[in-house]
Amino acid sequence: MARVSAEHLEARRRQILDGARRCFLRNGFHATSMQDVLKESGLSAGAVYRYFRSKEEIIAAVAAEALETIRTSFEQVTSAQVPPTPDELFIEVFGRLQESVGAGEDPRELPRLLVQVWSEGLRNPELAETISDAYAQLSVQWARLISQYQSRGWVDPGADTVHVARILIGAVQGYFVQQALWGGISPEEFATGLRALVSMSVPDDHRTARGER
Amino acid sequence: MARVSAEHLEARRRQILDGARRCFLRNGFHATSMQDVLKESGLSAGAVYRYFRSKEEIIAAVAAEALETIRTSFEQVTSAQVPPTPDELFIEVFGRLQESVGAGEDPRELPRLLVQVWSEGLRNPELAETISDAYAQLSVQWARLISQYQSRGWVDPGADTVHVARILIGAVQGYFVQQALWGGISPEEFATGLRALVSMSVPDDHRTARGER
Repeated sequence: MARVSAEHLEARRRQILDGARRCFLRNGFHATSMQDVLKESGLSAGAVYRYFRSKEEIIAAVAAEALETIRTSFEQVTSAQVPPTPDELFIEVFGRLQESVGAGEDPRELPRLLVQVWSEGLRNPELAETISDAYAQLSVQWARLISQYQSRGWVDPGADTVHVARILIGAVQGYFVQQALWGGISPEEFATGLRALVSMSVPDDHRTARGER
Repeated sequence: MARVSAEHLEARRRQILDGARRCFLRNGFHATSMQDVLKESGLSAGAVYRYFRSKEEIIAAVAAEALETIRTSFEQVTSAQVPPTPDELFIEVFGRLQESVGAGEDPRELPRLLVQVWSEGLRNPELAETISDAYAQLSVQWARLISQYQSRGWVDPGADTVHVARILIGAVQGYFVQQALWGGISPEEFATGLRALVSMSVPDDHRTARGER
């Protein structure tokens, strides 16, 4: 009995969050009312308020889920025995994220949700903390990957792992921005661009040349 | 007479946009009313409506200015005789952007405004077009820089310049996200991370090793 009840509770929670996410993607956090969420999820106010006290709590839950999806996707790949290069990492993670999207679902949903979450995080301190926590976990994970690169001689051992990690995380965030706003960017194209960039070779005398111009 | 009048018009417009930007940074686009803009800019409704018919028009003008600031900053640097490496580009542009911020102003203003602009662009087609135009111009500018890298043998000549440009633009967008949400990231740190990343050297047999794991 207890098990059925827990499943039932989870299914209801799922129903609310899925409905809310559809509303948020359509109209944004601000233009979505609790009434819209009730209508979209097909539940009564009494049922919804048993799980979430306010729209803010629903926003926080939807945001936390989106951030968790990203964190776990990268965790699986970065913990491999032989570290993936940045472009391999992108292909595997974004390939998997796109596959995990069901038929009829828009692969831009997650990117579009994230851009909204960042923006909302600028004015909502609780949400800002949720985002910071996720980012801190991601930073640790990626800095570890950079250490692996360094121990294999792929990256300058004198480089600060956190600074390098920030760039890769930044490129991922940029991918989300571009995908959210325009879409149509295949993970493969993004990965080949990244592959060409990380294998740049600038001659040592370049800085001298720039100084002389 | 005509000249004074044009200057006066521009000063008024400036006053409205500066006031509006302060409101947007404090409360976001949605929670800012025209009343707030009037109060902040110290002008009457009649004066403001002579320049902008709606809050949407003010948002569009503030966004266009922010995007233009970024485009011109990069244009100056990318058009140099000897092309800057990606990390040099970051240092020069972000160093300059931070310097251009007056005393008492928050250097996170531009990043925070941009994140909001992207989010708003998801639901506002006119704003989406403004962002797309700016991005298209930036893409052309950066693809040209990648071509210069290729002609100097710094980047694989077989790589698609647009795909490589996307990664660099993505890293810039990621820098804005991180700066907007957390701040405290010096352009120098970001540049050193980028420098270490673009000079990665992965041995040719790596892919074989991954295949065998």
